[in-house]
Amino acid sequence: MTTSSSILSTTENLPRVLIVKRPAAMAVLGDRFVASTKFEILKAFESPLPLPAFLANHSHSVSAVIAPVAAPVTADLIRLLPNLRLVVTTSAGVDHVDLVECRRRGISVANAGSSFSEDVADTAVGLLIDVFRRISAANRFVKQRFWPLKGDYPLGSKLGRKRIGIVGLGSIGSKVATRLEPFGCQISYSSRNQKPYDVPYHYYMDIEEMAANSDALIICCELNEKTMHLINKDVLSALGKQGVIVNVARGAIIDEVEMVRCLREGEIGGAGLDVFEDEPNVPKELFELDNVVFSPHCAFMSLEGLEELGKLLVANIEAFFSNKPLLTPVL
Amino acid sequence: MTTSSSILSTTENLPRVLIVKRPAAMAVLGDRFVASTKFEILKAFESPLPLPAFLANHSHSVSAVIAPVAAPVTADLIRLLPNLRLVVTTSAGVDHVDLVECRRRGISVANAGSSFSEDVADTAVGLLIDVFRRISAANRFVKQRFWPLKGDYPLGSKLGRKRIGIVGLGSIGSKVATRLEPFGCQISYSSRNQKPYDVPYHYYMDIEEMAANSDALIICCELNEKTMHLINKDVLSALGKQGVIVNVARGAIIDEVEMVRCLREGEIGGAGLDVFEDEPNVPKELFELDNVVFSPHCAFMSLEGLEELGKLLVANIEAFFSNKPLLTPVL
Repeated sequence: MTTSSSILSTTENLPRVLIVKRPAAMAVLGDRFVASTKFEILKAFESPLPLPAFLANHSHSVSAVIAPVAAPVTADLIRLLPNLRLVVTTSAGVDHVDLVECRRRGISVANAGSSFSEDVADTAVGLLIDVFRRISAANRFVKQRFWPLKGDYPLGSKLGRKRIGIVGLGSIGSKVATRLEPFGCQISYSSRNQKPYDVPYHYYMDIEEMAANSDALIICCELNEKTMHLINKDVLSALGKQGVIVNVARGAIIDEVEMVRCLREGEIGGAGLDVFEDEPNVPKELFELDNVVFSPHCAFMSLEGLEELGKLLVANIEAFFSNKPLLTPVL
Repeated sequence: MTTSSSILSTTENLPRVLIVKRPAAMAVLGDRFVASTKFEILKAFESPLPLPAFLANHSHSVSAVIAPVAAPVTADLIRLLPNLRLVVTTSAGVDHVDLVECRRRGISVANAGSSFSEDVADTAVGLLIDVFRRISAANRFVKQRFWPLKGDYPLGSKLGRKRIGIVGLGSIGSKVATRLEPFGCQISYSSRNQKPYDVPYHYYMDIEEMAANSDALIICCELNEKTMHLINKDVLSALGKQGVIVNVARGAIIDEVEMVRCLREGEIGGAGLDVFEDEPNVPKELFELDNVVFSPHCAFMSLEGLEELGKLLVANIEAFFSNKPLLTPVL
């Protein structure tokens, strides 16, 4: 029996679940985030050893990995874990997991399902209102004691009748759409395929055409080789000088260099950004712009949401080791 | 014929409409805000003279006043204008107009009707999301380059299942309610009277009881002698440590001194404030708090909304002087 402080429970013979970097939820909720009597957690991030040295002692005992976005499950990591059978991500997106290698090795993969969808959709709407109605900027204006020294605060724009193009009408995108309907927004969407006829929103096969007919784009799709830099120079140019972009998906879906240029040169109207191409590095050259709102990849994070996530992670891992189907399988 | 530059049009015999202080909309839209061929605008705020001196030359010619909130129509002002027949406010609220004196003198009063309701409701929802999901605070966190130096950003709270108490289910309050429904919020309301049975929200006759059963209060009622300091120490105390307050109505509906104390001492959970008791003075002792979002009484302001307001003002004034009914009469 090991006495390592990096192991939550020391009951023998339980499956061991490796966590390389501390998930945000664990920083908040502590060990109760994924507490279970049916598996042991192995916290590499609590060890002073570099990961390969740490794994040298544990590699054969690890049968599952909990993988936050900040700790990619690469082919290299997988190679270090000969008995790995399950990867469970703390995110809906699985672009930080080498799915090809997992498939080749017969490793199952589960994600966070739609447990974040409501929170992410809420934040997307919050960012959209913030940019259109300039809420963060107004807050700054008051706190800088410009009211009324600088006269009245510059005007925001009305949400009603705004044409909102949702990129990816999945679990998050469809929740964004239903939230924006009562604001009087006109919703359209683009996605791999047109949704069934009971989806009441206009479908665009071509994203550039949607951008040209939208006052704002809200990015809700997953990142994959087809959506990488999907929002490129042409799409941004079609969106135009008044157009707003909100990204709650993944930074790399937008060509960030191009977006930064467009924002700085006034070629698009504003942005609400929760995600970035090279997190946690953000384009600081936008900090001075009043029409850009940043958040640190926390759209998915709420206390209630993280608690639900923990329950889902535990349920997936327990199901797997009980030979039951995963609740939110990817592979 | 006068040649004063304070008069927009110099056509004789047209009714004259006095504006004492420049409305925010006029600062943005210029003279086209209330342009009409059927009346003349008299801009006291462009004259270097004090108002009584300015009016000494014009008082008998003024038959209507356009009254922004910042320029109260007091009994004193009314006394200076012997031929005043109409007051048109640029706001939905008319608490800055001495209605008793207007009624006594037979002066008609029109307000801005519900032309701001959508914008105000949108901002109320934006402020609520901002406080619960900490959007302005997250923005500040990123811009202060705390990501990831300070680790992950502190958690917000999920909107779903939050119990939202709307104070005043009028034009604005009901729009706030329909907007919050798809977020999964549980809506209740208080108002002078219970609404007809087809309003699907729980009614509280007692606001303290509603506060005790709410995660947030959104103030949407008008200010009058009954709502002055309606949100007092007892209501705030009932709302409790996690409770959030959003005010898009009038500052004086909340006992601001008491609210500031509650926020500073953690007795309520946060606030989104567009209005204040002594505008433009705001309680600066709250500036350091991450859970308070300010905006400078601009919830009603959008470019589109101000253009609609201008059309409504002109339509009310033209109707009045054509002996037609006011579109949005108060008196």
